[in-house]
Amino acid sequence: MKQFTSVSDVTDLSAFVEQAIRLKADPFAFSGLGRNKTLGLIFLNPSLRTRLSTQKAAANLGMHVMVMNIDKEGWALEMKDHAIMNGSTVEHIRDAAAVIGKYCDIVGLRSFPGLKNREEDYSEEILKKFIRYVNVPVISLESATLHPLQSFADLISIEENRKSKKPKVVLTWAPHIKPLPQAVANSFAEWMTKAEMNLVITHPKGYDLDTKYTGNAAVSYKQEEALKDADFVYVKNWSSYFDYGKILSAGKGWMLTNKKLEQTNRAKVMHCLPVRRGLELSHEILDGKQSLVLQQAENRVYAAQTVLKTLLENLSSKK
Amino acid sequence: MKQFTSVSDVTDLSAFVEQAIRLKADPFAFSGLGRNKTLGLIFLNPSLRTRLSTQKAAANLGMHVMVMNIDKEGWALEMKDHAIMNGSTVEHIRDAAAVIGKYCDIVGLRSFPGLKNREEDYSEEILKKFIRYVNVPVISLESATLHPLQSFADLISIEENRKSKKPKVVLTWAPHIKPLPQAVANSFAEWMTKAEMNLVITHPKGYDLDTKYTGNAAVSYKQEEALKDADFVYVKNWSSYFDYGKILSAGKGWMLTNKKLEQTNRAKVMHCLPVRRGLELSHEILDGKQSLVLQQAENRVYAAQTVLKTLLENLSSKK
Amino acid sequence: MKQFTSVSDVTDLSAFVEQAIRLKADPFAFSGLGRNKTLGLIFLNPSLRTRLSTQKAAANLGMHVMVMNIDKEGWALEMKDHAIMNGSTVEHIRDAAAVIGKYCDIVGLRSFPGLKNREEDYSEEILKKFIRYVNVPVISLESATLHPLQSFADLISIEENRKSKKPKVVLTWAPHIKPLPQAVANSFAEWMTKAEMNLVITHPKGYDLDTKYTGNAAVSYKQEEALKDADFVYVKNWSSYFDYGKILSAGKGWMLTNKKLEQTNRAKVMHCLPVRRGLELSHEILDGKQSLVLQQAENRVYAAQTVLKTLLENLSSKK
Repeated sequence: MKQFTSVSDVTDLSAFVEQAIRLKADPFAFSGLGRNKTLGLIFLNPSLRTRLSTQKAAANLGMHVMVMNIDKEGWALEMKDHAIMNGSTVEHIRDAAAVIGKYCDIVGLRSFPGLKNREEDYSEEILKKFIRYVNVPVISLESATLHPLQSFADLISIEENRKSKKPKVVLTWAPHIKPLPQAVANSFAEWMTKAEMNLVITHPKGYDLDTKYTGNAAVSYKQEEALKDADFVYVKNWSSYFDYGKILSAGKGWMLTNKKLEQTNRAKVMHCLPVRRGLELSHEILDGKQSLVLQQAENRVYAAQTVLKTLLENLSSKK
Repeated sequence: MKQFTSVSDVTDLSAFVEQAIRLKADPFAFSGLGRNKTLGLIFLNPSLRTRLSTQKAAANLGMHVMVMNIDKEGWALEMKDHAIMNGSTVEHIRDAAAVIGKYCDIVGLRSFPGLKNREEDYSEEILKKFIRYVNVPVISLESATLHPLQSFADLISIEENRKSKKPKVVLTWAPHIKPLPQAVANSFAEWMTKAEMNLVITHPKGYDLDTKYTGNAAVSYKQEEALKDADFVYVKNWSSYFDYGKILSAGKGWMLTNKKLEQTNRAKVMHCLPVRRGLELSHEILDGKQSLVLQQAENRVYAAQTVLKTLLENLSSKK
Repeated sequence: MKQFTSVSDVTDLSAFVEQAIRLKADPFAFSGLGRNKTLGLIFLNPSLRTRLSTQKAAANLGMHVMVMNIDKEGWALEMKDHAIMNGSTVEHIRDAAAVIGKYCDIVGLRSFPGLKNREEDYSEEILKKFIRYVNVPVISLESATLHPLQSFADLISIEENRKSKKPKVVLTWAPHIKPLPQAVANSFAEWMTKAEMNLVITHPKGYDLDTKYTGNAAVSYKQEEALKDADFVYVKNWSSYFDYGKILSAGKGWMLTNKKLEQTNRAKVMHCLPVRRGLELSHEILDGKQSLVLQQAENRVYAAQTVLKTLLENLSSKK
């Protein structure tokens, strides 16, 4: 593994999950592995969970971490090739990336989509340029289209809670007041598919995701039907992919409730957080016994630690 | 000690002060104690002294520190229970706290009062909710009503400078142009009372503090009378508690001067900093020999280190 | 060496450069030297390269680093002596500096010029006050008039690439849309002069630098003439020193191109970054083989590490 930007970067998914579970049981077992290695965490957008969990994961491995909130620290990056930079951007991404790569052994990058131009966002221009010029292994801390550290933590959480070999996993759209990226949903679909879960996706018409990520998962516009016998229900809002970045309706009736859960196989309920309580998901579910949201958040550490450990081992073997 | 949010959390105050003084003499004596332990410092309001001194204290104990300026990093928290989160807040404090608790062994929280609603501020709703959901030991980095790390550092500074067993300590109100919390004053009164100092509080009419904190300390509206024979003079502005959060007058004549100090027992002058020079306290006093302000600031490290050491030892003993 | 604010603080320049090159070859050779030592990095202005490279340098030496973006973290400092602080500033620089000095063994400070008042900027009032009150060794992370860590990295880069004992080094002004400080140019001139390079400075009329820094370097208003036979071309914009802080012209024709480079001795091209591509310097040069900009950026680590190592050794020897 030379980078971690999607599930495709993982060669053996079940071994990866097992590794994470072993690290969770013994987080400091490899505390010397990251000695004299520096992780740079570069945020073009705000972060709480991703920043803290990845920082903790790196510390568990003995790495030195440098965090840079480029969005907040006043450093507007130019993204266009061949730009004449006589406007508000102060540095080109290719220079910034190349410089950061001189100071770090591994770099994480968070870069949200603009949600204005689908082609641009789905080209992953920013992440790809960053990878091209930084010249050290890159971990996506959520890109325009994917959030692989989250999906990995989700898969670990499912592994810890599943009662059958191939559980039914339902990804359900939820209401929100702001247009959100499709990244978490795309990424979850991709990981569940590769992990060979029985995945069903449900959302109102118009919210279909790109089939590049959802593959042959079943899609239903009827939430109650989809929820039937579910073992896991993953709740997430996303804006429209086809009418790009738009909120098509208020989504009335799509918030998950305890009543709806009755149709499931006592399903565990998942959400990547942050969650808008009372809008995306009810207080009663979030605070109830079926919620896995804190376990997912905790597993972010071990997802990141597994990725970092793998990249560090690869660095060492190159020498 | 399971948390540190007020003097009530300290079982043996004089042993606590002695411990701090020993740590000051040998700051790295316990540099292995915090191995593999993470301290999260969460700021809902800006900080200089508290952040740097607590971070240094943790480093002296070998801890890993993660700082999050939630106010500046764009993460507006919802504080109300059962809120329908369809406004500007992106995450509920109970979720944010619970997640942070998964990544840290000890967490510090700074949360200032709004100074609009006394009942709300004095209920310490934010701190209490944070403690309830974070599920690891919490250190107050200044809450709505108290600033115990500051008061502890103040007590250490008095201990280092006192010439009698029960010195006369005067807490005097000072002018300011902005409405400030009562937290430092409340907390100082509480600590001085528990430490059995001879405490006198002086301020203009209308600035009386809540007697919950001041206990049976003498209160005078005549500053010059109060200052007589003082061994220590603690200077601090606060807004009105009764006419809540208001500035009642410009406070003309209340700034401490060298002339006023002549009535004291060559008193040492204290202030928690930051100080508005020429408004709260004169340049001549701050830069003179009677000022303890830098010693107080330095002692913030050893106050925090004593608290962290005690919490770390308690963590270990639970295993 | 007790501080590092200009080339004058360096006693033996060639030994200093040699030390940096040795550290680059073996960055972790002194990883125990900074044990239990804390470096504070205080930014009154934004930074990417300086922050990350200095933080990395300190980590290589085993130091603990605390970063404080005072500009972004809401802490407006009062700079005037004897001010009555009844305005927007919350703390006087003398108090802030003195407190920071209690928490750190070495402190770095970045403080840009206002470019409004030359006398004020060139007095280096902020840096000097900070040094006076912080009471621990100070490293300039770029002050109003100088950027010594950059110039040191530049000199290391020249040392690594020069083919003759006394190469011809041309500092050429470049266009920009914003008024920039003279600090990088002043500092580069000072270091090149002390290193006994053959320095030629070229810029449009009106952009003459203070001869205090340029010494007896040749100055030409004709860029093409100046570039002839150059071994190194250092590209940088600065605003006018005489018509202080002003942009006097668009600088048409002053951007360096490959065509202009043909007159040089296959010169290496340097820039401190961030660079406005297509405005200050062409894409083709930046991405071509003659560019040293990434090497300069990388050498920022070893410049900082050499300075920190020297200051740490000096701290130890005092004990």
